[in-house]
Amino acid sequence: MAYFDEISKVKYEGRNSDNPFAFKFYNPEEKINGKTMEETLRYGIAYWHTFTGDGGDPFGAGTAIRPWDHLKGMDLAKARVEAAFEFFEKIDAPFFCFHDVDIAPEGDTLRETNKNLDEIVAMIKEYMKDSKTKLLWNTANNFTNPRWTHGAGTSPHADVFAYAAGKIKKGLEVGKELGAENYVFWGGREGYESLLNTNMKLEQSNLASLYHMALDYSKEIGFDAQFLIEPKPKEPTTHQYDFDVATATAFLQQYDLQDHFKFNIEANHATLAGHTFEHELRVARESGMLGSVDANQGDLLLGWDTDEFPTDLYSTTLAMYEILKNGGLGRGGLNFDAKVRRGSFETDDLFHAHIAGMDAFAIGLKVAQKMIDDNFFEGIVDDRYETFKSGIGKQIVDGKTSLKELEAHAIDIKDINLKSGQVEKIKAKMNQYLLNI
Amino acid sequence: MAYFDEISKVKYEGRNSDNPFAFKFYNPEEKINGKTMEETLRYGIAYWHTFTGDGGDPFGAGTAIRPWDHLKGMDLAKARVEAAFEFFEKIDAPFFCFHDVDIAPEGDTLRETNKNLDEIVAMIKEYMKDSKTKLLWNTANNFTNPRWTHGAGTSPHADVFAYAAGKIKKGLEVGKELGAENYVFWGGREGYESLLNTNMKLEQSNLASLYHMALDYSKEIGFDAQFLIEPKPKEPTTHQYDFDVATATAFLQQYDLQDHFKFNIEANHATLAGHTFEHELRVARESGMLGSVDANQGDLLLGWDTDEFPTDLYSTTLAMYEILKNGGLGRGGLNFDAKVRRGSFETDDLFHAHIAGMDAFAIGLKVAQKMIDDNFFEGIVDDRYETFKSGIGKQIVDGKTSLKELEAHAIDIKDINLKSGQVEKIKAKMNQYLLNI
Amino acid sequence: MAYFDEISKVKYEGRNSDNPFAFKFYNPEEKINGKTMEETLRYGIAYWHTFTGDGGDPFGAGTAIRPWDHLKGMDLAKARVEAAFEFFEKIDAPFFCFHDVDIAPEGDTLRETNKNLDEIVAMIKEYMKDSKTKLLWNTANNFTNPRWTHGAGTSPHADVFAYAAGKIKKGLEVGKELGAENYVFWGGREGYESLLNTNMKLEQSNLASLYHMALDYSKEIGFDAQFLIEPKPKEPTTHQYDFDVATATAFLQQYDLQDHFKFNIEANHATLAGHTFEHELRVARESGMLGSVDANQGDLLLGWDTDEFPTDLYSTTLAMYEILKNGGLGRGGLNFDAKVRRGSFETDDLFHAHIAGMDAFAIGLKVAQKMIDDNFFEGIVDDRYETFKSGIGKQIVDGKTSLKELEAHAIDIKDINLKSGQVEKIKAKMNQYLLNI
Amino acid sequence: MAYFDEISKVKYEGRNSDNPFAFKFYNPEEKINGKTMEETLRYGIAYWHTFTGDGGDPFGAGTAIRPWDHLKGMDLAKARVEAAFEFFEKIDAPFFCFHDVDIAPEGDTLRETNKNLDEIVAMIKEYMKDSKTKLLWNTANNFTNPRWTHGAGTSPHADVFAYAAGKIKKGLEVGKELGAENYVFWGGREGYESLLNTNMKLEQSNLASLYHMALDYSKEIGFDAQFLIEPKPKEPTTHQYDFDVATATAFLQQYDLQDHFKFNIEANHATLAGHTFEHELRVARESGMLGSVDANQGDLLLGWDTDEFPTDLYSTTLAMYEILKNGGLGRGGLNFDAKVRRGSFETDDLFHAHIAGMDAFAIGLKVAQKMIDDNFFEGIVDDRYETFKSGIGKQIVDGKTSLKELEAHAIDIKDINLKSGQVEKIKAKMNQYLLNI
Repeated sequence: MAYFDEISKVKYEGRNSDNPFAFKFYNPEEKINGKTMEETLRYGIAYWHTFTGDGGDPFGAGTAIRPWDHLKGMDLAKARVEAAFEFFEKIDAPFFCFHDVDIAPEGDTLRETNKNLDEIVAMIKEYMKDSKTKLLWNTANNFTNPRWTHGAGTSPHADVFAYAAGKIKKGLEVGKELGAENYVFWGGREGYESLLNTNMKLEQSNLASLYHMALDYSKEIGFDAQFLIEPKPKEPTTHQYDFDVATATAFLQQYDLQDHFKFNIEANHATLAGHTFEHELRVARESGMLGSVDANQGDLLLGWDTDEFPTDLYSTTLAMYEILKNGGLGRGGLNFDAKVRRGSFETDDLFHAHIAGMDAFAIGLKVAQKMIDDNFFEGIVDDRYETFKSGIGKQIVDGKTSLKELEAHAIDIKDINLKSGQVEKIKAKMNQYLLNI
Repeated sequence: MAYFDEISKVKYEGRNSDNPFAFKFYNPEEKINGKTMEETLRYGIAYWHTFTGDGGDPFGAGTAIRPWDHLKGMDLAKARVEAAFEFFEKIDAPFFCFHDVDIAPEGDTLRETNKNLDEIVAMIKEYMKDSKTKLLWNTANNFTNPRWTHGAGTSPHADVFAYAAGKIKKGLEVGKELGAENYVFWGGREGYESLLNTNMKLEQSNLASLYHMALDYSKEIGFDAQFLIEPKPKEPTTHQYDFDVATATAFLQQYDLQDHFKFNIEANHATLAGHTFEHELRVARESGMLGSVDANQGDLLLGWDTDEFPTDLYSTTLAMYEILKNGGLGRGGLNFDAKVRRGSFETDDLFHAHIAGMDAFAIGLKVAQKMIDDNFFEGIVDDRYETFKSGIGKQIVDGKTSLKELEAHAIDIKDINLKSGQVEKIKAKMNQYLLNI
Repeated sequence: MAYFDEISKVKYEGRNSDNPFAFKFYNPEEKINGKTMEETLRYGIAYWHTFTGDGGDPFGAGTAIRPWDHLKGMDLAKARVEAAFEFFEKIDAPFFCFHDVDIAPEGDTLRETNKNLDEIVAMIKEYMKDSKTKLLWNTANNFTNPRWTHGAGTSPHADVFAYAAGKIKKGLEVGKELGAENYVFWGGREGYESLLNTNMKLEQSNLASLYHMALDYSKEIGFDAQFLIEPKPKEPTTHQYDFDVATATAFLQQYDLQDHFKFNIEANHATLAGHTFEHELRVARESGMLGSVDANQGDLLLGWDTDEFPTDLYSTTLAMYEILKNGGLGRGGLNFDAKVRRGSFETDDLFHAHIAGMDAFAIGLKVAQKMIDDNFFEGIVDDRYETFKSGIGKQIVDGKTSLKELEAHAIDIKDINLKSGQVEKIKAKMNQYLLNI
Repeated sequence: MAYFDEISKVKYEGRNSDNPFAFKFYNPEEKINGKTMEETLRYGIAYWHTFTGDGGDPFGAGTAIRPWDHLKGMDLAKARVEAAFEFFEKIDAPFFCFHDVDIAPEGDTLRETNKNLDEIVAMIKEYMKDSKTKLLWNTANNFTNPRWTHGAGTSPHADVFAYAAGKIKKGLEVGKELGAENYVFWGGREGYESLLNTNMKLEQSNLASLYHMALDYSKEIGFDAQFLIEPKPKEPTTHQYDFDVATATAFLQQYDLQDHFKFNIEANHATLAGHTFEHELRVARESGMLGSVDANQGDLLLGWDTDEFPTDLYSTTLAMYEILKNGGLGRGGLNFDAKVRRGSFETDDLFHAHIAGMDAFAIGLKVAQKMIDDNFFEGIVDDRYETFKSGIGKQIVDGKTSLKELEAHAIDIKDINLKSGQVEKIKAKMNQYLLNI
């Protein structure tokens, strides 16, 4: 049986194609700087938005019309697996990602939940044998069920913490079973609704313990995935502990976890925290902790996580620049943690949306690579900081000077030959790069 | 000569007083939990807003009408010192704070600037002999002059870096000369206008070097002030490196500076970063880094730093709660980094505004102390986390368990007896505390 | 059968009461300026949040534990009616409000839905006979069902428009049947998700037609309720047409509806639109269109509608000031369009939350009335604008001057004796009013 | 003498040009849909940002290095006129705009100010004889001088109102003298700093009177410029009365001014008000009130008016779409109310920035025209609302139905064949349009 009968495998047709079900810019086989686009971009499909999500919002019920709507329970879960692998193939996706509850229904107990999971995981494993699509990462959803209201690893109730630990244990086992390249921690409820009733120190310390236990268990079972923290400042929780990359870095350092984690950076989470997407990527990159990316975009006039499919070419270009300067994403990938708008409720929209995102990052890759080939940003920075290459500047960089020496250097200076930052010229040039691709 | 002739020394007259030039709640001599209000609150007057500021904004010229308006240069600087000490006495301030350029005009070279500074510092020292008002902290203004456009310690030009270093050297010497209890670093230009032309890694590394050099020089001259970082996310710079307490903590840890710095936390900077004032105080307190406070408030419907005088009693109460739980502010204080509105341009407004702020924090102190005496928040938290005091909860806290044990504990649990967080009840009780003070 | 057995009728016990189930400030019988608190405040209970809501959020399932949880369909609907009237009595509420779908389940067709409604409306009518609680307003929920995805009165599909019209027709009939004092229009889906596929002009014109038809039908059936527009800028829709009071006023004027509508103003909607609550109340009051109030509060650090129970006494005081200056709310009331936090999932929290809100507005009423009795704001304004009472000022106000005359008046003026706006002094005095209540 | 010696007249060199002082996309002579780019785009240069502004910000002094820096008073004013016309010619600008204080220094009285103005206006008139550059609009700066602290037309002091009126009178005369096509009102101080001391009703009524007097005087002297309101929500004032297009429309309607004003819409003001640029353009267009445009862009992560030069091609494309659908801008134009970043302090940056903006809108024009030629958005909307073309839909649009008839139509409907809004597909297509230009 097929869920997307009317749609053939999506193929590259070039920028002038009128076929909405074709890639116009993403050509998986095209080599950019020695690697195929597919190898560099490592696109992932988010199971939750594409196969489990229903288009509901806080003021409205689900709208999505899906061929598996009529099913329930395990039957529904199985239909989704079938649909997922059909979709992966048709959209030509090298990776996918999921939370435990996306793929199998929760039971009344963790034991039952695990049983459901085992059955679906086995089915997925079977499908993966005949598919090129691999598991980029999996994780445990420790935020939807009412038991997580006050937190999971930061719950005020020890049983909830234990339950969270149990789910993570299973998550690691599932990841190993399916060959996941990464394991993600997103702390949707790890924060506080109100500081007034919160023991922040205990909660953070417990969360760190949970991470240490996860590392230990992962080692014990020989699951060598990269561990990833996914920062988000708020929503659903009023204030989340992993606010942004810098905040999570401080946390990891404080609890001696920094050598074992990298970051899964989401565009819309960055902007909710008051940063650009590229800022968060840069901060992670410069500390060697850029692990993977949740590729989406937000609406900066709205104050919540809209998880839109990424189409802004400025954003995809600057993101790809950071990724290329990082030497690529390593074991990470570009996971479309993005959902079709509530009004885009047809199955066709799933294709349109992924094509939009895949083309947008392909363009970003091409533009960014061209700028790197031209030494564009590097040349600007090289010129701008040239005074640090010799003399007093070099001494500063080398840590070989002091306030006294620097005062002596500066004490009678009248004019310093500062140069313009030329942001406007740079932006004009970026538009030229974009339109000349 | 007197600048505020028409105003007598401001005194405590009690909550029913109709005298706008009297304290209604701040009674410096009143003991709260064994310390006088003055000892606990350690109020500081911000020289820049109160004696140097003119009420200008991006769309308008200065409006402030001050008795020293007709003066210029060093004469103006001296008049401000006279006015300041008259104001300190009349408002009964135990502390004051300044940037170098607030007290003396900049010369054409650092040498000339320092000469001007020396003269005014000597004058201030003389005035301090007859005054109870001490120097809470001083700092170097490395953000107003055009040379700092692209940064000071993070400038792309080595001469600018050297200049900044020279100014900090002088700042440390001035602090020592006047017995400052703290030395503050606020990096208004330490960040980027645009990531497109910025070498973030070099800039941050240079900034860390500058801090290390300042520590070394401070030790060399025997200036034992507490060093304070003042986080702010943005404005004037698009993105500041000391975004918030957590971000600055990560930076300090990365560059091995965390043992030598605490934080100067400003209410309005907290809200610009997406946090409550009490959140930032809590984060700093829990890592033992709550050093001092810039007491003001913002307007959350406006996206810039309004630096209003603090009058919101919810905010002052929760701030004082954090401060009392911190065992007080130590060498820090509550510095009114606040400016009268542009439309409050009369000298009387300086008194009204400070009285408003001093009363507001005095009320906050009384309410917070009453809640602590009643074990109010502590009782709530104690109940809420009780499952961590024994059994599996205690094992979690003690780090003596594992995913396996926790899974075994959780595997067949059906119902967890979660309790309501009762935020509404807590808020109602807080209103009752407030109105019953 | 009783749903809240353990809780007795909530009574006024005074500000020092330790009983969390008592009013500390709201004394329904107490007269303030000749009217009882109950008569002035006209509290309403929001059926949807208190009896129908389940505490779900975009990342989590419902958490609310309610005695009627085990029921379904019409049985559930009936249990809610019983619980509601028990709650109304115990919390001593003079009013309640509902959307159609809050009280009865939707059927497969509008005909079935109406049948369900009829049964529950009859039951409510029966309960109202023995209750003092009246219907403040009702409305049609034209936003939850998937059919409203693209709008209701602004849908791109005519059948959807017709369906919306049919539901409003029934809503007007139900309002008449139950003696509703007002009928509310909140356009949660009346706006656009994206301007890219939207015919804004057609949508707004259709919406205006719908309002005209509702007015006509209301007249036809003799339902003389006040019609109310409830502005909100966004959420769920990206951009709602009734953005704020001013925007909705322009719309009403453009389509000749301004004489037939007033506004239902919600605090949290005001702040989402970039205004204070009191601003929106003032704008409506000054054009004679302040109709009713949705009493809640938002979290200004969060970008979505949190609908918290109102506890901020600054906000309740300034709101009550506007309401008192309006001569009260007329046929409107203070409807608690507020929900307990997701973590406040116990039935007790429903009482704590309403008590918190009712006490907060009672305090606001007392403080505002005291300020009015003292001519506090009026005196400030009177002084401030005194130059408009005579001379050229009076001519300006009377419209009896011209640019030429005004130029002649101003041409040689050197100094204008502007006075300080004294905002800091005013805020200090407001704190004194608050704490001396 | 020449101020920009090193720069030749900027010319179109095509998209591949490496010359930073050439247009790559803006070809003034190129015809698009029958009109030259110059005729359609009607670019204007903002005198204040480009010749008067110094790059100061709230935390820093001016940084701009300009060849006229050493001059003062009227000499400075004259040098700026010379520089301006040199710049206009080199950048090939058809229009310019100014506030009175941009072009001539204020005197101690309005009489002296007017005398200064007369001298410079005469000089500008002389220069205009030999220049193709015309005056798009002028206005009176009634916001910078301290006298406007509490407002100009909304001041609490009648003398200030008179002064404002006098300046507007002169502004109208100057506009007539120089042949201005429009006259703009931006109420930077027309709003409130705090509602606590504000008589909003009196202020708004006075403001309306001022507009009526301006209309009368304009008629009297035979100055037939289009009057424009420029909405802005806040900054410098906490809350401005002309919050956005809808708010200002309500004001104009209420005071019977709507037939005499159109809007000057600024991109950055739109986003500060919570709208997209294109939203504000659409709202104005649909009520026939789109008059002119202040072409810039903001930084949505910053909460203040950054007035950046426009480079975002999504924004320029959607703006040009609205403008083309409006039949062009009529007497209005695209005024670059944009300033170079504080760090872009060299005169070259003035050229780079304008070239960036002029190219960005030229691209926007080409993309928008292509989409219109293809009936792109029109086709989408046509399909989407097709049910309103016949049957019940047509009756709705024609206002020929009722709630009863609509209920009858809807009462037994089960399924409505809603179609997806396809936003993702539309956005992908827009990227294709952009890259294929």
